[in-house]
Amino acid sequence: MVLTSAGGLFISIEGPDGSGKTTQARMLQEKLEKRGRRVLLTREPGGTSIGEEVRGILLNPLFCEMTVPCEIFLYGAARAQLVSQVIRPSLEKGTIVISDRFIDSSIAYQGYAGGEDPEMIHTLNLWATAGLLPGKTFLLDLPVEKGLERLQSKPGEYAGGDRIERKNEHFHRRVRAGFLQLAKQDPQRIFLVNAEKPPEKVHEQIWGQVRDLL
Amino acid sequence: MVLTSAGGLFISIEGPDGSGKTTQARMLQEKLEKRGRRVLLTREPGGTSIGEEVRGILLNPLFCEMTVPCEIFLYGAARAQLVSQVIRPSLEKGTIVISDRFIDSSIAYQGYAGGEDPEMIHTLNLWATAGLLPGKTFLLDLPVEKGLERLQSKPGEYAGGDRIERKNEHFHRRVRAGFLQLAKQDPQRIFLVNAEKPPEKVHEQIWGQVRDLL
Repeated sequence: MVLTSAGGLFISIEGPDGSGKTTQARMLQEKLEKRGRRVLLTREPGGTSIGEEVRGILLNPLFCEMTVPCEIFLYGAARAQLVSQVIRPSLEKGTIVISDRFIDSSIAYQGYAGGEDPEMIHTLNLWATAGLLPGKTFLLDLPVEKGLERLQSKPGEYAGGDRIERKNEHFHRRVRAGFLQLAKQDPQRIFLVNAEKPPEKVHEQIWGQVRDLL
Repeated sequence: MVLTSAGGLFISIEGPDGSGKTTQARMLQEKLEKRGRRVLLTREPGGTSIGEEVRGILLNPLFCEMTVPCEIFLYGAARAQLVSQVIRPSLEKGTIVISDRFIDSSIAYQGYAGGEDPEMIHTLNLWATAGLLPGKTFLLDLPVEKGLERLQSKPGEYAGGDRIERKNEHFHRRVRAGFLQLAKQDPQRIFLVNAEKPPEKVHEQIWGQVRDLL
């Protein structure tokens, strides 16, 4: 079921850093609010006081010794808290929740790119979210070089990039391949968007889908 | 196999707050070092820079909204990092590692007392530690009132107790029952110790077991 009984809808926006997720989340929020819908924008890792503390650990470039299983558990912790404290209660009130990243990111980054078992990450996370998956996911896809190029011109929280952004190009290629694999496995939920196009064109593709769900 | 091929041995000390785990860990360390063994003492959550950051989140009394699944994942994150960065490399060098708490605490606190599935917590954690369990675990058991009494006279990191210590007596009763259940399920690994006795007597019980393993 895509809509909750109260009319809530859970949308995630996925894709590499530099693909325009934040811009698209805001454009979609604005469009929905203009139509009188209550919208909550959230981001991962983070979105709660506890989650933001966890985010600080995850993205800190000083923690270069962090193992992939440790990463998976930290993302899972932030996500469990976000779902139970924010996402689920909002959906139950009929709010549309747009999350900048969700489970698919864990599977692409720590699984396909990080070398841990994608199936296991999926299982762990479904347990963390008590089974909650987005009703619709938009995967903003673009060539790896384009994403890295955009990143370099973007002011981030950490000079030189956060701990994940600093990984090499080969890593980011595996992330992209992972995301595409997920889209192939679950075409009903994951909608592939060409993120090389201008933001307005990307937004049109997304809006066309969301409009049909409401 | 209890000893690693290099002669390392992994011991965990479990039990409620106030049962004397830290004292016993130090007494055991001293005795082993006198016999010329290399010993590493570690604590959970914590024991690495990343783990100590996670500990700060877990025990912060301000985060009273933390859900049990979030807790489980945070403990798992600290544990995954500790095992891979510290415990495993030490065991491979023949060191004896003594950990103040390990997986059994997660199962007792978040499972039996916290209401999440003990089996699932076990599975998650075995994945976090890549299958590592202690060769021997000492469960320091004492009546709940005794533990709480001792706690009140102990100077802690947080005035009024940390986030876990502040839970009510009913919670601590379920923790004790959980630990005893685990000891019953795995009597070969978990050795039950009467922690009401004076520290020297408790130490004698522990030493009798460790001596036989070396």
